[in-house]
Amino acid sequence: MFKINDYTKSREAFLRAEKVIPSGIYGHQGPAEGCFVPVEAFPFFSDRAKGSYFWDIDGNRFIDYMCAYGPNVLGYNDPDVDAAAAAQRAKGDCITAPNTKMIDFAELLVDTVKSADWAFFAKNGNDVTTMAVMTARAYTKRKKIIFFKGYYHGVSPWTQKIDYAGVIEEDVVNNIYLDWNDIDAVEEAFRKYKGQIAAVIAQPYMHNNFMDNSLPIKDFWAKVRKICTDNDTVLIIDDVRAGFRLDIAGSDHYFGFEADLICFCKALANGYNVSALCGKYFLKNTVSSLSYTGSYWLSAVPFAAGIACIEKMKRINCTQLLFEKGNALKNGLIETASKYGYDLHVSGVPSLFYLRIADDPTLMLHQEWIAECVKRGIYFTNHHNHFINASLSDANIAETIAVADEAFSVIKNRHS
Amino acid sequence: MFKINDYTKSREAFLRAEKVIPSGIYGHQGPAEGCFVPVEAFPFFSDRAKGSYFWDIDGNRFIDYMCAYGPNVLGYNDPDVDAAAAAQRAKGDCITAPNTKMIDFAELLVDTVKSADWAFFAKNGNDVTTMAVMTARAYTKRKKIIFFKGYYHGVSPWTQKIDYAGVIEEDVVNNIYLDWNDIDAVEEAFRKYKGQIAAVIAQPYMHNNFMDNSLPIKDFWAKVRKICTDNDTVLIIDDVRAGFRLDIAGSDHYFGFEADLICFCKALANGYNVSALCGKYFLKNTVSSLSYTGSYWLSAVPFAAGIACIEKMKRINCTQLLFEKGNALKNGLIETASKYGYDLHVSGVPSLFYLRIADDPTLMLHQEWIAECVKRGIYFTNHHNHFINASLSDANIAETIAVADEAFSVIKNRHS
Repeated sequence: MFKINDYTKSREAFLRAEKVIPSGIYGHQGPAEGCFVPVEAFPFFSDRAKGSYFWDIDGNRFIDYMCAYGPNVLGYNDPDVDAAAAAQRAKGDCITAPNTKMIDFAELLVDTVKSADWAFFAKNGNDVTTMAVMTARAYTKRKKIIFFKGYYHGVSPWTQKIDYAGVIEEDVVNNIYLDWNDIDAVEEAFRKYKGQIAAVIAQPYMHNNFMDNSLPIKDFWAKVRKICTDNDTVLIIDDVRAGFRLDIAGSDHYFGFEADLICFCKALANGYNVSALCGKYFLKNTVSSLSYTGSYWLSAVPFAAGIACIEKMKRINCTQLLFEKGNALKNGLIETASKYGYDLHVSGVPSLFYLRIADDPTLMLHQEWIAECVKRGIYFTNHHNHFINASLSDANIAETIAVADEAFSVIKNRHS
Repeated sequence: MFKINDYTKSREAFLRAEKVIPSGIYGHQGPAEGCFVPVEAFPFFSDRAKGSYFWDIDGNRFIDYMCAYGPNVLGYNDPDVDAAAAAQRAKGDCITAPNTKMIDFAELLVDTVKSADWAFFAKNGNDVTTMAVMTARAYTKRKKIIFFKGYYHGVSPWTQKIDYAGVIEEDVVNNIYLDWNDIDAVEEAFRKYKGQIAAVIAQPYMHNNFMDNSLPIKDFWAKVRKICTDNDTVLIIDDVRAGFRLDIAGSDHYFGFEADLICFCKALANGYNVSALCGKYFLKNTVSSLSYTGSYWLSAVPFAAGIACIEKMKRINCTQLLFEKGNALKNGLIETASKYGYDLHVSGVPSLFYLRIADDPTLMLHQEWIAECVKRGIYFTNHHNHFINASLSDANIAETIAVADEAFSVIKNRHS
């Protein structure tokens, strides 16, 4: 029997937070999000983190499968990345003139990412998805953008939904929403809006929330790539979430095509704050023509961290490692579920697995199972893909499966 | 006679940068910007920084009056801020659950900033100006936004100009552009667009580029405040650049009014990467209703740094210190200019002074003087306001005035 966590201090802290912060905690990491059900199962505030673990302020330890929603790819406080960052910090970070670490980092990305002839650095994934769309519009002198339903490309008004708070019609009037993997719909949109489509923007596969994640069907990307090329439309891959967890050379490379622009953020520097837009040579001058910058965008510490992170990911063959760990976990969870007669669907790639107990279409049973795991120190989330990091050990995976087993047993007993 | 800097290594590095980064260096910190004229006078890459100095990769030392375009407010690598950040980093930074330092920082801002009933944290100034506009639109259910010509509110499409690359008509169609300090124009716009104006967004005073900076005329803010209140329009103050350099309680407080929303970024954490939207209680639930977050927004290190920065700014009475240093510099520069018969205009507040030699409307003479200063190790910029930091010493100011004197002498000789 595993210990059931107590969250008294997290709850007390949240009452303080609510007074001075809208929502108390915002985004996925706050209880207002649909990922946190039932909310009682989840801790709210962390105290510290190391490797594959974080500890909350009540002293509970979690094996963490969210990895700060992606940035933690090598393990929290990775010694190699932290040493490189500390050495740079001692010299300086955010300075009037940039550090040559910016050049080193751009050269490394150009060497590493297949579709990168150059790199431009910013802070949020949203900064570079927005820049990609602006680049496409500037290059093509067109307005319309194709999205695939289920997309997430950040929080700028152009990428939000018309029924979201603060969004106006003008923000989204040029957006065309198509079904994922529907190549006929893509062809039809290009016929209907001939000469008007600036860009197709897409994640490398559909890793959306509240739905089994969906890989591209055969030839989907080859066909989309050809349509974009034939129509002088810019193909933007949003690799903010999946980047470096499928392929160190970019997720487009994993699926056998090349993007014109590719957006990176989360796994770029193991939690140090940087994002990157990379792309093809023919768009480099267009990028230069944009008015686009930010207060901290040339800071040196995240560049030093990013270099150390990418070099280490290459050295340890990180994506293969993440797939192996993800597969071991996936197989163990599915087998354990089947012991109790449950059909656990695991979708997406193993390094970014998405979980769903398929026996209950209302997802309530799934939420109950996730809650029993979280209360026992396995940090899963209900309706969002998970993230594997390289420091996750075989012992961590074994413990996860043991907790999952007990959690399945609890829900089986409850409902039988 | 002061040594004239050699920039050989900076130039060699820039050739490398151009190959892999659009523009080589982008934004203000790159030579493509109008601030860098003549470009030969400026270094491109820094090696390290400490206090009021940075050193470029050729070993030249600069007394830095740009402060990384604002973030450096206490001095580079301030020991108190760096110690707080390092202590937090040892425990963790970007973690699946946030740290309670987020609450502490929000409470500190609410205690410190007069118009803040709450705080929301992001990364760029642009994140919070965009969020402010979305909040105003969500709250009022209106679309139009009043700007004052000469504004800069970031790089999102809604705040760029229609003739900028990548911007489409829909991005800016709801923008109304008025002249700064023209209260009649504000009244007229509110009559013309009655019931349609979601927000007025403005810097606390006009600290624009390529122009003498301009403080609000008497009663301007009181009148704008009243018009906004009477029309249920949200008054947004963009304090990204000026914040904490006029008044620790917010630049609206300095000018005797209260904003509904106030945006902070640059001086918030002495170079650690964080921005904040603060505002009035009546908008808190609207902010909660937005879909708005980012990968690194809950990272703990910048919160720890921000707390240490604000506490130190209060402890040393930072704004008064910056005004005293700025005034000493301003008076010394004006007096030195007059020795050579030049009329040096110094505009804006002393902590954010803007320089212009008024004797030549083409600004060529001004650019020549700035170039002679920079080549001798005083980092000024041509057509952008400057920034004072608290570590600037009397000896730094004396050296600056001595270099300025020699630079005036050089241009006087050249043109007589």
